[in-house]
Order: sequence, then C-alpha cells, then structure tokens
Amino acid sequence: MKLQEAVEKIILPDNTYEKKAARRLDEQARPQGSLGMLEETARRLAGIAGTLDVCLNRKVIVTCAGDHGVTAEGVSLFPQEVTAQMVYNFIDGGASINVLGRHAGALVQAADLGVNHEFEPQLPVFHKKIAKGTGNIRREPAMSRDQAVSAIEAGISIVEKLAEDPGVNLLGTGDMGIGNTTPSTAVIAAFSGINVEKLTGRGTGLDDKALAHKIRVITDSLAFHKPDPKDPVGVLAKVGGFEIGGLAGLVIGAAAMGIPVICDGLIATAGALIACEIAPLAKSYLFTSHRSVEAGHRFMIEHLGIQPLLDLGLRLGEGTGAALAMEIMDASTRVLAEIKTFEEVAIKNAQKK
Amino acid sequence: MKLQEAVEKIILPDNTYEKKAARRLDEQARPQGSLGMLEETARRLAGIAGTLDVCLNRKVIVTCAGDHGVTAEGVSLFPQEVTAQMVYNFIDGGASINVLGRHAGALVQAADLGVNHEFEPQLPVFHKKIAKGTGNIRREPAMSRDQAVSAIEAGISIVEKLAEDPGVNLLGTGDMGIGNTTPSTAVIAAFSGINVEKLTGRGTGLDDKALAHKIRVITDSLAFHKPDPKDPVGVLAKVGGFEIGGLAGLVIGAAAMGIPVICDGLIATAGALIACEIAPLAKSYLFTSHRSVEAGHRFMIEHLGIQPLLDLGLRLGEGTGAALAMEIMDASTRVLAEIKTFEEVAIKNAQKK
Repeated sequence: MKLQEAVEKIILPDNTYEKKAARRLDEQARPQGSLGMLEETARRLAGIAGTLDVCLNRKVIVTCAGDHGVTAEGVSLFPQEVTAQMVYNFIDGGASINVLGRHAGALVQAADLGVNHEFEPQLPVFHKKIAKGTGNIRREPAMSRDQAVSAIEAGISIVEKLAEDPGVNLLGTGDMGIGNTTPSTAVIAAFSGINVEKLTGRGTGLDDKALAHKIRVITDSLAFHKPDPKDPVGVLAKVGGFEIGGLAGLVIGAAAMGIPVICDGLIATAGALIACEIAPLAKSYLFTSHRSVEAGHRFMIEHLGIQPLLDLGLRLGEGTGAALAMEIMDASTRVLAEIKTFEEVAIKNAQKK
Repeated sequence: MKLQEAVEKIILPDNTYEKKAARRLDEQARPQGSLGMLEETARRLAGIAGTLDVCLNRKVIVTCAGDHGVTAEGVSLFPQEVTAQMVYNFIDGGASINVLGRHAGALVQAADLGVNHEFEPQLPVFHKKIAKGTGNIRREPAMSRDQAVSAIEAGISIVEKLAEDPGVNLLGTGDMGIGNTTPSTAVIAAFSGINVEKLTGRGTGLDDKALAHKIRVITDSLAFHKPDPKDPVGVLAKVGGFEIGGLAGLVIGAAAMGIPVICDGLIATAGALIACEIAPLAKSYLFTSHRSVEAGHRFMIEHLGIQPLLDLGLRLGEGTGAALAMEIMDASTRVLAEIKTFEEVAIKNAQKK
C-alpha cells in the first residue's frame, strides 16, 4: 500500500461499541469509574474492534532498527556496531524485548530499516533497508524525501504482511538504533518549537558535558535544516531516521487496517507523532505505553492527548514498554467482557433461589 | 502462629542473592539501569527467594472483608449489605478481582474477618469472623484489643494454610468493606499526625458535602480515642477494622514465612502499615502495587519507602491493583533470569563461528 492510499483508508472507528462499552462499564458491580485507565483503554479497544468481547490473542511487536550518521558527532555512549549486534540478539531471542515479548504472549519481529550492516537474507528479519545509515544531520539531510516516503511505506508493508500471516490484533512498536534519541529529539523540537535544551535527555546515560554537546548538535541540525512542522515527511527526511520512518509507517498501516497499535518510548513515539501529523485520524488507533524519562516525551504525550499506561522509569526502547503495556491492555478487555453488571449479579442470585 | 511468634520469625533476607541479581542486571546487554523499577523489583524478589531464577507460579490474592459500625454515620454511598453481596460475587467469580486475578494467573480467595452476615459454612471462604462489624468509631472503639490481635492472627493463619495447600510464592492482599476508607484514613492520621482534611479522599465517590462530613467523623473519632501511634495494635483496636487487622496479619504472616507480599490500594496499604509498625522487618517482603487517588496513600508510600509499580487511577480495592502489579513482578523475574549478559551474547556469537 502506498502512503497516500493508506492515509485515505484510515477512518474514525464507529462509536457504537465505544458507547456500548461505556454503558457496560458503568453498569458493572463496582463504583463507577473505579478502574481508571483500564476503563478508557477497554472503551477505545471495543470501539476499534466493534465488539464488547475484544480478543487480543495475536500480539506482535515490531522492533525497527536503523543507524545514524550523527553518531560521528559522538552523541552516544555506544558505538554504531551495537545496532547490528542487537538485531542478532533479537533473532537469538535473548534480548530484553524477546523476554518481555514472551511474557506478554507477543511475537517479536525485528525489521532492518537502515542498519549499517548486511544481514544474511535468510535471517528472520523484515529486510527493508533503505540505506546503510542516515546522513549526519548536523551537516546534511538524514535522507532524501523519496527515502523518507519509502521508510514509511516499508512500515506499512510490514503491517500488511503481518495481518495476512500470522495475523495481528494488537501491534506494538519499538526501536533499536545507536544515537537515535538525537534525531528523535530533533523531530520533537521541529514539531513543538520547544527549546532544545528543555527537550534533550541523557539517552542511555550521558554525563553533563556529553549532554551539552548533544544539545549543541541538535541545535545546529535544526538551524541548518529549518524543518517545517507543517511538512512531516520533510521533518523526517531532514532530521529523522530510517527506523523512525518505519515506526511512523507501522502506525499508519495499523490505523489503515483498523488494528490498535501501542508505541514504546521516546523514539517509537516520535515515529507515532510523525504518523499522526501526516494522518491525524491515526490517533484513534494509537495507545502509548509508558512515560519516558526523556523530557521530549512529555510534549508528545500532551500533543497526542493519549496518556501512557505505565511509569516504570524505563529508558531502554526495543518495544519493552509496549510489551508490558500490552498486558494491561489485555487485562482491560477482560474487565469489559467479564466483570458482571449489577443486573447480571441479581439474575444469578435470583436463579439460586 | 501467634502474633508474637510470627513477629519473632521475621528475618532480613540474606543479601547474597540481591547482590548477585544486581550484578547480573548490570551485566545484561542493555544500558545499565534501563529497565527502571523492573530491576529493583527483580533484585528484591531474588533476595527474598535466594535465587536468580525466581518462580512466581503460585500467586494467591486474599481479599479480606469486614463491616464497619461507622457506616451508621453515613460515610459511604453504598449500604452495608453490599459487603456481603460482594463476598458472594467473589465466590461466584464475576467480580473485578476474579477477572483480574484470572488474568494474572492468581488464585483469588475471599476471607470473612467481620462481615455483618452469616455465611454458610460450606462456602469456599476463609471463615475468620471476629464479630459482625466493628463498633462505630465516632462513639466507641472499633474492637477490643484482644479482637485486634485475633484479627491479625487470623491473617497469619490464612498465610499458614495457603503455604501448606496449595502453596504460595507471591501473596496479594485486597479488601472489601463498605465504609472502610474512613477507618483506614483514621489509621493513617493516627500514625502520620497529618491533618485529617489533607488526608481524606472521596472513597467511592463522595461529593463536597459528604466529604466534609466524612472529615468531621474521622476528626471526632481521633479526638475521642486519641490513638497512640507507638501502639499499632491499639490504633487498630480504636479506629481500625477487622479486615484491616486481617490485612496486617497477611503481611506479617507472609514475612514470617519468607513470602513476598504485594498490597493493593488505600485499605490494604493501611493494613500493611500497621504490620510494619508492629514488625518493621516485614517491609523487606512488602511491595506496593499502585498509587491510589486517595491522599492518605501518598503518606504511607513515603513512610514505607516502597514505590508502587502502577499508576492507573484505580480506586476500587478488592486486590485489583495487586493483581495487575503481580504481572509486572512476574515480568521482572523473567528480566533477571532471561535477558542475556554481554558475556553470554559473546559466547553465543563465538560458538556460531
């Protein structure tokens, strides 16, 4: 599916089942509203699925990987090679996302959007490489406009493939890419207009000096490219990343196919933000998993208007927060379907007599 | 086990495995500390269990129920009969805690500590009734000192029974008792010395006028009894509740038997607070599940020094927050055991070559 076609396919979920869900939740044998965010989550999922008995038995987490030319500026503690090494670790099943994906009952699939390494074609990875890493955004665009569209369309095609086989009724998005908090923060700054100093966090653990340097790199990049917030594809091309484009595509693809999608932390949410700037209706299918400790995350949560389900101090990425939040989403569907209403309790009691 | 015996049995977990766990977590192939609260949870659980491969396959949630004479003062929106009705609902499996307990893979067991109703003896409930509801704390003690000790010992005996059959390696505590935010808040005020107005919340949904009345009732109760914070059993007897005593006993019993215990919201945490005032070492076995919207909860979290895992706007009780948090605790044990260290990844890669 082309990007334009996917965007046009996204429709607001019919609100019939969201309303029915709200009524059932209110009628359950407990104080109204007492299950907090579980209730809102269940309502939204019911609206999307068009049923009060939502089944999330086919969970898939896609971890999009890409490399970043800006690592040449020394913005990360880890060398670029780690991106490819981690993709192998995902394939071997011993990475954090594999462990938490298994716990959530989710299939974990890695996708190469732009890793600076040739993966053997037989490896069980979505082979969607646009190029071997982006340009160094301090001095050149991350990618061309065509490449940005291709990265998004790669994400869309992954959802199409998953929907066909093995099927997916809850999609999680996660990232892997050494240095990718830098482009993500640049993307957030481009859309928010917020001062880079306020937005920039320590990534995987920078000290004060390294943090000041990272702020300078992002500030320079924005000054050099002057990305236009009204042109989200342009923002992605100028200061984004291939995996960020893929993450945007996953959200647009899921929304186009009516599949709820939960995004992980800073980078995956930056992808989701681009998706919702391109296709605002995609927000109806989007859930956010956890509060990132990165400052830019707060802006996105407020801008998207979707409260995260967890606040566990995570700062890993890979989709780990999405995996944990999937369990809460699953629980919310059971709350809606299985907690008895006052009427059902009364009927049961009458039958006993 | 008598209360005194249980208190004496509680020992600090040997820190060998907590240290080993910390080392393994630091060596895993991901940025140090990047899994936030999952890491602290895993460390503590490893310390308690004395292994790096902690198994939480026998989860049990005990929902302690009791009635409160203070409902005569009109402090709750629901009539007292609802307590007994909800116990029947727990037995039938259609209540919120049954649904969330099933989702977490936990056995849910109700316990009658002091419901104003005679339950048929063959019902699958822990029959531990101390009396049919407490005294109206605005005018008389909730219970005698002997009854307070009996309520706590009832909780301890439940853990002993569960440990024997069916076995338990993670205990959750929850409450049911119409009106029980009033005694719980009185308990918190007694220990904290914080102004009742600041501590008192809306329970299951009081309006401004009803809230002001509830504050007056709690203030009167404290003025009448002058509970001594250095005498936790006395606090329970004067302004507590039977299920609150049972909840304290569950924590003391679990700690005495070396079982990790996770407490639910306001009421269960008030029980845990009493437990830790009686037996400070019990804190080493205690986890808190979620931030309650009730103001008194914040004090307890700070006082106990144990951060809750979730913040989902829950205000239901029954153990629902504990059930959800059990899934996070479970995930934390998988994080510790299954995420590969840098060394393990390197060995695997070397083997491939």
